[in-house]
Amino acid sequence: MRVVTNRVDLTQAQVWAIAHLVDGRISQNDSVLESHSHDESAFPPVLPSAVVSPNSTAEVSSVLSYCNAEGIPVVAFGAGTSLEGHVVPSRGGISLDLTSMNRILEIRPDDLLVRVETGVARKALNEKLSSYGLFFSVDPGADATLGGMAATGAAGTTTVRYGSMRENVMAMTAVLADGTVIRTGRETRKQSAGFDLTRLLVGSEGTLAVITELTLRLFGIPEKMAAAVVCFPDLARGVAAATAIVRSGVAIARCEFLDKKCITNLNKLEGLSLAEAPTLLFEFHGSPQSVKEDANTVQEIVADFDGTDFEWTAEEGQRRKLWQARHNAHYAALAMHPGKKGVSTDWAVPLSRLADAVGAAERVLSAHSYPYSFLGHVADGNFHAQIINDPSKPNELNEIREITHSITSEIIAMGGTCTGEHGIGGGKMESLVEEAGRESVEVMRAIKRALDPNYILNPDKIFTEKI
Amino acid sequence: MRVVTNRVDLTQAQVWAIAHLVDGRISQNDSVLESHSHDESAFPPVLPSAVVSPNSTAEVSSVLSYCNAEGIPVVAFGAGTSLEGHVVPSRGGISLDLTSMNRILEIRPDDLLVRVETGVARKALNEKLSSYGLFFSVDPGADATLGGMAATGAAGTTTVRYGSMRENVMAMTAVLADGTVIRTGRETRKQSAGFDLTRLLVGSEGTLAVITELTLRLFGIPEKMAAAVVCFPDLARGVAAATAIVRSGVAIARCEFLDKKCITNLNKLEGLSLAEAPTLLFEFHGSPQSVKEDANTVQEIVADFDGTDFEWTAEEGQRRKLWQARHNAHYAALAMHPGKKGVSTDWAVPLSRLADAVGAAERVLSAHSYPYSFLGHVADGNFHAQIINDPSKPNELNEIREITHSITSEIIAMGGTCTGEHGIGGGKMESLVEEAGRESVEVMRAIKRALDPNYILNPDKIFTEKI
Repeated sequence: MRVVTNRVDLTQAQVWAIAHLVDGRISQNDSVLESHSHDESAFPPVLPSAVVSPNSTAEVSSVLSYCNAEGIPVVAFGAGTSLEGHVVPSRGGISLDLTSMNRILEIRPDDLLVRVETGVARKALNEKLSSYGLFFSVDPGADATLGGMAATGAAGTTTVRYGSMRENVMAMTAVLADGTVIRTGRETRKQSAGFDLTRLLVGSEGTLAVITELTLRLFGIPEKMAAAVVCFPDLARGVAAATAIVRSGVAIARCEFLDKKCITNLNKLEGLSLAEAPTLLFEFHGSPQSVKEDANTVQEIVADFDGTDFEWTAEEGQRRKLWQARHNAHYAALAMHPGKKGVSTDWAVPLSRLADAVGAAERVLSAHSYPYSFLGHVADGNFHAQIINDPSKPNELNEIREITHSITSEIIAMGGTCTGEHGIGGGKMESLVEEAGRESVEVMRAIKRALDPNYILNPDKIFTEKI
Repeated sequence: MRVVTNRVDLTQAQVWAIAHLVDGRISQNDSVLESHSHDESAFPPVLPSAVVSPNSTAEVSSVLSYCNAEGIPVVAFGAGTSLEGHVVPSRGGISLDLTSMNRILEIRPDDLLVRVETGVARKALNEKLSSYGLFFSVDPGADATLGGMAATGAAGTTTVRYGSMRENVMAMTAVLADGTVIRTGRETRKQSAGFDLTRLLVGSEGTLAVITELTLRLFGIPEKMAAAVVCFPDLARGVAAATAIVRSGVAIARCEFLDKKCITNLNKLEGLSLAEAPTLLFEFHGSPQSVKEDANTVQEIVADFDGTDFEWTAEEGQRRKLWQARHNAHYAALAMHPGKKGVSTDWAVPLSRLADAVGAAERVLSAHSYPYSFLGHVADGNFHAQIINDPSKPNELNEIREITHSITSEIIAMGGTCTGEHGIGGGKMESLVEEAGRESVEVMRAIKRALDPNYILNPDKIFTEKI
């Protein structure tokens, strides 16, 4: 992230004015400022000048209206689990903590939808939904807030079957920089009424508006769910098997790749006893008959790629434990290196280039000394390298950024993207220009200027300079 | 559509200048102007001043750059099958006929994608794809161009399973009003890199840019496909059965409702011999086993709603004939009333309100004398009333608009939308404001102003006045 010189610290009068708007819910307490200074990435922290905790759309509106008039930067904050420095308040100003807005407003089983406030966390939502036989499908590793997930365009292990936030946010309430409240989308399965503002805000990383309410699409919990694990002699054959499975048209619900290091970490930290080899984890959803049929097809395909130890389980406790472990893979890698931080890349390529892309990343990373591991949503062509750095040696982070940037350029040349699900944040701005082209980025800037002319919403993210 | 006074007719010098840019492919021939003056809606035709036929993105770029400088309105034109007056050149200027750009550029079976020029028609694409065992899923009734389908955010009978254009356009090349060429999206299954310009252009109805190239997601032709037909004693039970099926989680590939009048029309004009009653048509895709299982579940559910004469066919010729007839339903209704035109509404509601919504529309329409019929993609909560009018009596069209507008207001009050898949075009601007709210429409206007400041791209569509 760039060093910026135009830091904004609130005057006492401004603090009082904002306090008045939110019934006193503003803090300049050191530990509160610290907890809002960083996300889960390796980006160096920056303290906000104050943390403001609105509890309604109306309060968000009045805070934004005030900040817009005063030129105070505003960074929306949820669970703080972003991976590209999204919530780092690079210019100070306020961190707008939305976690008090955590009400589940309406569950409509008949319409397969739920309406929530922005600060509801995904696990809390799914706990509530389970008694209705329903679930919300998007599952990043972190227990992120749904507003944060929408803002970054998050995805997860079930995206191959159920889609990402892009496909699962039906409607929103959001507040523009000047405090105007808008509604986007509709609680219908189809809509073609004017520009698709919902999809414009999904993935806009808090730079265009602050999302305060979401209508989300739900699915019924499948009659039958079963997981399977299979090992491969090497990474290339595991990846090739995954692409073959996608092409076969089998309706997999999850298809995750973990390299040997990931498995070793999970065995140690999650109490698993998986064979320590490149591994694919699968899940199948459907009727008992269709799950069995799908699992059989997959077992036949993986055998063609020398997959061994195919093991499957429909036992609920074991199945949950396996996926809980998979979701903890990011944290497990960090836990193996106490005091260290991790850079998580987020490359995605067309399926036909997946083996090449993983190979290219492996070739470059193995030539350096930083510990790394690979894992990914391979059925979507999306994979992460997690690279460990020492935060006390800032040059390490710079070097890792140079290394990953060079791999990203190769990925982009293959028709890939610098980010499948984490977003641009503060770190991939040059890659965005390389990938999308300067002309497309200029269109994004024009939209940003039109909606946030005073440049108060999450500055220094997505774009490289003041626009 | 509003009557506008600022019609633009090209000067001879302008005609020559544009001719020079497109190697002479500009016409002011009467019959060519006439064929570009209307779409398939009941909107009164307006002649363009000239029809220009570029054959490359570069030519589109130079034509737009010129028109932008000269203030000449530009309306992109594909198959002319839009249903809301989208391609009517309300201010004259040029109609940009993109049907010469009809090359299929690249088929990549391994990546399940195809790259096409904007003027490729959907049937031609699917003919080409079938030899690869692949298909492009979005199937509006008309044999529209893919660029037109993207621009209107089209959907079809398989949307319940495979999504609409929104989910199936992966990347685009498009030309902005000033001639700038942009690339949006990526040929990857996931991307979270900056604002989602692809989804912004899908459904923007030619008001933000001219789409010249598309990368589309493909699916493998299912191992097994089977169709089923079932009759109901009344419309309400048919609709209730459809919503019950969706809630059951059965993986239907198609679920279409046709009322008695539609069936009568199709029997007469398509040589079918279906029982003349409210009818659901289904299709199931998958393995032979799963198709059988799904069809059995559906048969059980429809029985609960007094469905009768459940008949299913896996015979390919019969299956195709059935769906071809369904796709012709719009034309069949018109053919029953020679010399007449049709207004096709496009309401969608949350599933729980579908029976109410159809009931409300039925109640209002039956109180008037215009012939009408209902059909719809009921599993998506989306249904159309086709209402017949006499184009020689302009007051009929006005009256029908008033009637449908009042139904639309009821639909919106139920949480529904004025358009699930046809778009706003020239006729639903007030409904858009009613549905999205003035604030949201102002955001759309701000984006329009930012990208098309001279207001040359498809004026008088989506928005009610010059912006």
